[in-house]
Amino acid sequence: MIIDCDVHHYVNSIRTLLPYLPLRWQRYVEESGFQGPAPSPYPKGSPYAARIDAMPPAGGIPGSDLSFMREQLLDRWEIEYAVLHCLYNLWSVQNEDFALALARAVNDWTLAEWLEREPRLRAAIVVPINNPELAATEIDRLGEQPGFVEVLLPVRSDAPYGRRRFRPIFAAAARHGLPVGIHFGGTPGNPITACGWPSYYIEDHTAMSQAFQAQVVSLVCEGAFEEFPELKVVLLEGGFGWLPGLMWRLNKNWKGLRREVPWVKRLPSEYIREHIRLSTQPMEEPEDPKHFLTLLEMIGSDDMLMFATDYPHWDFDSPDHAFPVRLPADLERKIFSENARAVYRLPSTASLAGATAK
Amino acid sequence: MIIDCDVHHYVNSIRTLLPYLPLRWQRYVEESGFQGPAPSPYPKGSPYAARIDAMPPAGGIPGSDLSFMREQLLDRWEIEYAVLHCLYNLWSVQNEDFALALARAVNDWTLAEWLEREPRLRAAIVVPINNPELAATEIDRLGEQPGFVEVLLPVRSDAPYGRRRFRPIFAAAARHGLPVGIHFGGTPGNPITACGWPSYYIEDHTAMSQAFQAQVVSLVCEGAFEEFPELKVVLLEGGFGWLPGLMWRLNKNWKGLRREVPWVKRLPSEYIREHIRLSTQPMEEPEDPKHFLTLLEMIGSDDMLMFATDYPHWDFDSPDHAFPVRLPADLERKIFSENARAVYRLPSTASLAGATAK
Repeated sequence: MIIDCDVHHYVNSIRTLLPYLPLRWQRYVEESGFQGPAPSPYPKGSPYAARIDAMPPAGGIPGSDLSFMREQLLDRWEIEYAVLHCLYNLWSVQNEDFALALARAVNDWTLAEWLEREPRLRAAIVVPINNPELAATEIDRLGEQPGFVEVLLPVRSDAPYGRRRFRPIFAAAARHGLPVGIHFGGTPGNPITACGWPSYYIEDHTAMSQAFQAQVVSLVCEGAFEEFPELKVVLLEGGFGWLPGLMWRLNKNWKGLRREVPWVKRLPSEYIREHIRLSTQPMEEPEDPKHFLTLLEMIGSDDMLMFATDYPHWDFDSPDHAFPVRLPADLERKIFSENARAVYRLPSTASLAGATAK
Repeated sequence: MIIDCDVHHYVNSIRTLLPYLPLRWQRYVEESGFQGPAPSPYPKGSPYAARIDAMPPAGGIPGSDLSFMREQLLDRWEIEYAVLHCLYNLWSVQNEDFALALARAVNDWTLAEWLEREPRLRAAIVVPINNPELAATEIDRLGEQPGFVEVLLPVRSDAPYGRRRFRPIFAAAARHGLPVGIHFGGTPGNPITACGWPSYYIEDHTAMSQAFQAQVVSLVCEGAFEEFPELKVVLLEGGFGWLPGLMWRLNKNWKGLRREVPWVKRLPSEYIREHIRLSTQPMEEPEDPKHFLTLLEMIGSDDMLMFATDYPHWDFDSPDHAFPVRLPADLERKIFSENARAVYRLPSTASLAGATAK
């Protein structure tokens, strides 16, 4: 049984959300001509960055049709659970009240039209990151709803998430025992690299792993894991080939510079192994396949990686040939289901024969 | 014999450079109250980020005294050659003519007070990066001077160096057969991470490797190595633990997205192995030392790493215990001298007994 920890359901258009918006904001959408949040500055080579076969036959954009998602993903691959991450880019909306209204609408739509219709689905709570206090109210509103198993943030932000102003989001997640998922994407306005704006989507996509590195360093160095000792942070779609090198560099710097951050009491790699989890997609593919297992050894923990397909995106990893090598059976079970089961606190369905069938 | 490919000589103050500035700019310094370029926004834990024993007994700041550098570095470690990189941050000066005047002054001072006094020293040409055409004039002025073996750029820039506006710098370097060295540092104004400004120097220092990753991706994706097939780019003080993961991710993305960058004709890792070189300091230290050799295997070329001490900085790597494991003899020779000898075209001094003595 597979737990797919990164699947995307899409809002077809702002009209999809209107029934879930209060009257005030329905009027605002109409009067302001709001068409939807900002797109990525890099066109992605295919509409919605999707697999060419992911366009639902009944209409709508890829990822917008539950029946077709059942057919292409849940049934086809016998998925035990899939965790939905809605990438509606409400994070780009600067009106904080409107951003909150959109977040609530997305979450209520997710609950009514996805979670309540399909028992294999779970979802992350989307929140307005430009106002962490408002974000916390949304986490408190839904944090005990069993369909929601995570809080979702985009990896790109205008300041790294360890900074103090974001603390209310992490405090709220910790209060409800939810992990914080940090996902590829976001359009905060600042450049995607440490050296400004590159020209192409291939660079944007490759650079995204730098944003993940920055968030990990910030959370460790700002003491987030000392403040929230139970908190887990799941990095979604950021790869993991960069992780050993980052741990080595940060460990070394901590040895030389720890006086600057006295609240960081242990080796950074210890916090990382305890608190960080990573989705496997897009799978790292070493040129020499035997290096894949060494990479896992360098990562130094069997508990960190969690399988994801990233359905319906163009770089979908299919469960049957996602990994460049055969994994040891124990590790395979951990990566394909048990690590995600632990982080998202998902009950086992193994004893409920047929419960996950259509 | 050791070739140390990253050593820093420091300008004590703007007064050091006055004799090398034209009268117009001497007056400008006086009238404008210019005290020197912008400092880093992150205090570095020790003055000039230097070893505590690096303050010259005769006065001045660390790295500003040739005799003391001979004693602490060149003689102490029997250095065959050391390549000087002057980190006078003239890149932060927005007046392009003044930035050029400062670059010329730094280069002329380097030639007169360092290279002409010590045959073991070589240096990189510093240039005003805010105007690549002016930068090219400085490279043309000194490109055939045998003391200068490289062009120096700071790794932090307001746009990645592959972008077309920087092409004149790379064209000039290629014209004179010089490698371009890209060094830790710079203060271009945009944040050091893909997620904005972190709070601490430990984060700034760790994040710097992201800037190196961004420059490599940009140079490959913008076709710089197709345009300059002989060009070598040396990454100085950026580490190398991130390199395999970056190659894997970029290779995979190129397979999926190459239509966007049709001038990139080969696997990105092929360009990287052929054109990129990396200094070893600060040395990556895997938690399990045996992973160090695997990391070198993953890098997949014995020609890429070049030893550096980073004298006089706080994270100095001493030649006798820089590496966490014993290297095979051939590889050791390549890393400690032959790779740098090839890139910088340094003649062998082995037959000139005593030529490198004081």
